[in-house]
Amino acid sequence: MDQRISRRIFLQGTGAAAFALGLASHASLAQGTPVASPVAGGAPLSLWNESPVRTALIDFVTAATTEGSPGYLDPADRIAVFDNDGTLWCEQPAYVQLVYAMEVVQVLFEQHPEWANEEPYKSALAGDIPGLLAQGDYATLTIMNLSYAGISPDEYIAMVADWLATAKHPTLDRLYTELIYSPMVELLGYLRDNGFQTWIVSGGGLEFIRAFSEPAYDIPLSQIVASTIETEYAVIEATPTLTRIDQVNFISNGPGKPVGISHVIGRQPVLAFGNSDGDYQMLQYTTAGDGPRMGLLLHHDDAEREFAYDRESIIGHLAKGLDDASANGWYIVSMKNDFAEVFAS
Amino acid sequence: MDQRISRRIFLQGTGAAAFALGLASHASLAQGTPVASPVAGGAPLSLWNESPVRTALIDFVTAATTEGSPGYLDPADRIAVFDNDGTLWCEQPAYVQLVYAMEVVQVLFEQHPEWANEEPYKSALAGDIPGLLAQGDYATLTIMNLSYAGISPDEYIAMVADWLATAKHPTLDRLYTELIYSPMVELLGYLRDNGFQTWIVSGGGLEFIRAFSEPAYDIPLSQIVASTIETEYAVIEATPTLTRIDQVNFISNGPGKPVGISHVIGRQPVLAFGNSDGDYQMLQYTTAGDGPRMGLLLHHDDAEREFAYDRESIIGHLAKGLDDASANGWYIVSMKNDFAEVFAS
Repeated sequence: MDQRISRRIFLQGTGAAAFALGLASHASLAQGTPVASPVAGGAPLSLWNESPVRTALIDFVTAATTEGSPGYLDPADRIAVFDNDGTLWCEQPAYVQLVYAMEVVQVLFEQHPEWANEEPYKSALAGDIPGLLAQGDYATLTIMNLSYAGISPDEYIAMVADWLATAKHPTLDRLYTELIYSPMVELLGYLRDNGFQTWIVSGGGLEFIRAFSEPAYDIPLSQIVASTIETEYAVIEATPTLTRIDQVNFISNGPGKPVGISHVIGRQPVLAFGNSDGDYQMLQYTTAGDGPRMGLLLHHDDAEREFAYDRESIIGHLAKGLDDASANGWYIVSMKNDFAEVFAS
Repeated sequence: MDQRISRRIFLQGTGAAAFALGLASHASLAQGTPVASPVAGGAPLSLWNESPVRTALIDFVTAATTEGSPGYLDPADRIAVFDNDGTLWCEQPAYVQLVYAMEVVQVLFEQHPEWANEEPYKSALAGDIPGLLAQGDYATLTIMNLSYAGISPDEYIAMVADWLATAKHPTLDRLYTELIYSPMVELLGYLRDNGFQTWIVSGGGLEFIRAFSEPAYDIPLSQIVASTIETEYAVIEATPTLTRIDQVNFISNGPGKPVGISHVIGRQPVLAFGNSDGDYQMLQYTTAGDGPRMGLLLHHDDAEREFAYDRESIIGHLAKGLDDASANGWYIVSMKNDFAEVFAS
């Protein structure tokens, strides 16, 4: 079978109609619109409660944009980096990309009977998320990123967008794309309004995030540092074609985050916001050295409005960050106390 | 010896003073200033002769920014990609990065006597550029990018900037940073003035280009797709530290260019400008599909003002591009006929 035909067959069932639906739904998300309006009088960060963290953020941005202030930052240096899962949107009870990948693995299993006895596929097929995560980043990314290897990045993005258009959270009963934290989206906009570049630096898959980052966060496709899989370029039946290959290329987690920042952004950020120990090195790198710098960790302590988890959780594990935050001068942001709302209503 | 001390020793002779000099020289380059002023009346591309290529470029940009025109482009799609060596600056008689690397290899040889009998170092030590290039991209990049592995990206960038501040071309007797093509710099500015993003997509080393891309082209550090070496993150003596590792990570040449564009930019460009067969796939990918698209190859046919070379040259080899340009609808830009000037005087 030639490659072009096998690609077509592979896409059956998620063909033109589903494709168009996915893209239409994708476009219908509120492109660039803030999730909520600021309070009357135009106070910044209106979705945050009065708190030391909110004050510190406003002071940091105010100083950064006030020439002559010791906290002033040249516009080129106004680089802010944000983790995605658990920092910008909900990651419980499992990373959204993992939920998607677990579904895909079931579908692809028909073509890969050998997976029944081969890790990490075996755990994924059994729906055993703890068992999969226990095998480490590489195994997890193998499942998360390799779903639909063999198609192009654009095809993959369209299929993810298609899925996101209808996929709902198991307990919160809303679309995953509605489970983005509105105070964080407000913070992204506030930073951009003050000349900051806002980047996503995520352990998740680059092209999964590209399926929703523009409408969800108003962050362009090129301002994402994330894990990647190998990609090949070839002319297939006279059509220049990029194809995702069944091989992890880069793992943008833990110490991979500063490396990805260096390769893609090329400048040390001044503000980093994460929520798990996978963000530790990103905050460490960002807050090292002289000049105004700010590190923040979102602490999920709000079982009522979202979830409460930290040291004991496999997803979003946060222990070292909590232990060292004070010594490192990082802010612990309490979802319960600091967020006036969690999700836009 | 602990790592921090070995790093210090390694930097001896290019220490604090040279460092400061490098950075000062770097900053003193004309940041963001056009190389020449447009002709009176504000006609675009005044450094280009009246020619079909100049007309086509202006028509393309005019249509791209004219709503309702069939050539209109949404601002997000206005992505233009440029090769660097031989497209934006002079690459003869050898890539500038290779000239630098050949000097560095001599210095480092003292610490690596085994290189005397080990390729590609052996050829590099002998100054045998054709012999080195004949060993392929990987060998060439091993020499080009691995100079000063073991130091941080920022330290490497500062050292390159330091070198560029005084290094002169062997026959043209000017600084390499003065051997950027002023009509190309003018084109970059013209595109940006019309809402295009201008990206460098180069087979050269990412951090070598970062040493001069901002002052030379007004292209930010994050808008460069280029070859990279592995980089590691670690805390060394309480200092978060990135270290360049002696291992090629990504080769952004030939079919690697569309792959790099996909990973870093995330969107198919609409205009691609190169000068060698290493740019073939970038032009092919950029000009594939519907909508307004433009591919251009700079033909070095100007022995008087610069150099004349194509099919027989190892550096900037151009044969397939010349053969296929017409069938592919690509423009061959004649340096001799289309450039009103080559370098700013």
